[in-house]
Amino acid sequence: MQSADAKLSRSSLQLALRRYSSVVRDMEQTVLLPSLLRDVPYDEAADCEAADNNMDLYEYYLMLKAIKNTVESGLIPHDDAKAKNQAALHKGLEPLLEAQPEALFHFHLGGLFTVIATLAKKSQNLTEKYLDIIGVSH
Amino acid sequence: MQSADAKLSRSSLQLALRRYSSVVRDMEQTVLLPSLLRDVPYDEAADCEAADNNMDLYEYYLMLKAIKNTVESGLIPHDDAKAKNQAALHKGLEPLLEAQPEALFHFHLGGLFTVIATLAKKSQNLTEKYLDIIGVSH
Repeated sequence: MQSADAKLSRSSLQLALRRYSSVVRDMEQTVLLPSLLRDVPYDEAADCEAADNNMDLYEYYLMLKAIKNTVESGLIPHDDAKAKNQAALHKGLEPLLEAQPEALFHFHLGGLFTVIATLAKKSQNLTEKYLDIIGVSH
Repeated sequence: MQSADAKLSRSSLQLALRRYSSVVRDMEQTVLLPSLLRDVPYDEAADCEAADNNMDLYEYYLMLKAIKNTVESGLIPHDDAKAKNQAALHKGLEPLLEAQPEALFHFHLGGLFTVIATLAKKSQNLTEKYLDIIGVSH
């Protein structure tokens, strides 16, 4: 039982990244007129979560595509503006890097998995919403 | 200039992970008697960083090998004990997942890159220390 449970609860980062690419590719092939997404609010009601997000769906579409490019290139862009925003986050974790590097490794590995799985779901939601907008039932 | 600079400052997570595996493999091939590392303190003096760490070199050696297995399998172990330790860290980031998923993606991607590059250096240091212990000059 134990080993079967362990197997089921394991997840692969590689698979999650590949799945994300494939879901965003579907989105790109479906959304032929991305400009239709402009000014459509990013509606979080369905997710029952706070909508702190003030991006419209068009901005979200661009963001999902940009992340796909990063995922597929495997490269880590060193954007100064982004780096500044994140300096505070990283600062708090620096002591962990020395004291508990293994915990920090698992923290970032698990975190990357969670965020990419969440974004894959967002991409699917966006595709569905586009189909709603153009009046195609699904 | 801009694009050349951007190119130089980019780093690849895939490469960093592959380099880590290779450095730990070197360590495993060099350290033929890991028990010699028992009770050797993990000396942080060379790094000029605080030594909150109370692992000995043998424990460090085992940790580096365990992380290599995770890196090579690509699987994310869902260890309940580890999960509990990290719940607090993740809790603080949950609002970010909705509000700024792109920032969180870059945070974890960059974080994973930093931690794996740091651990690769630690593995090289450990290999050198082992050679010191057995009296092989390098």
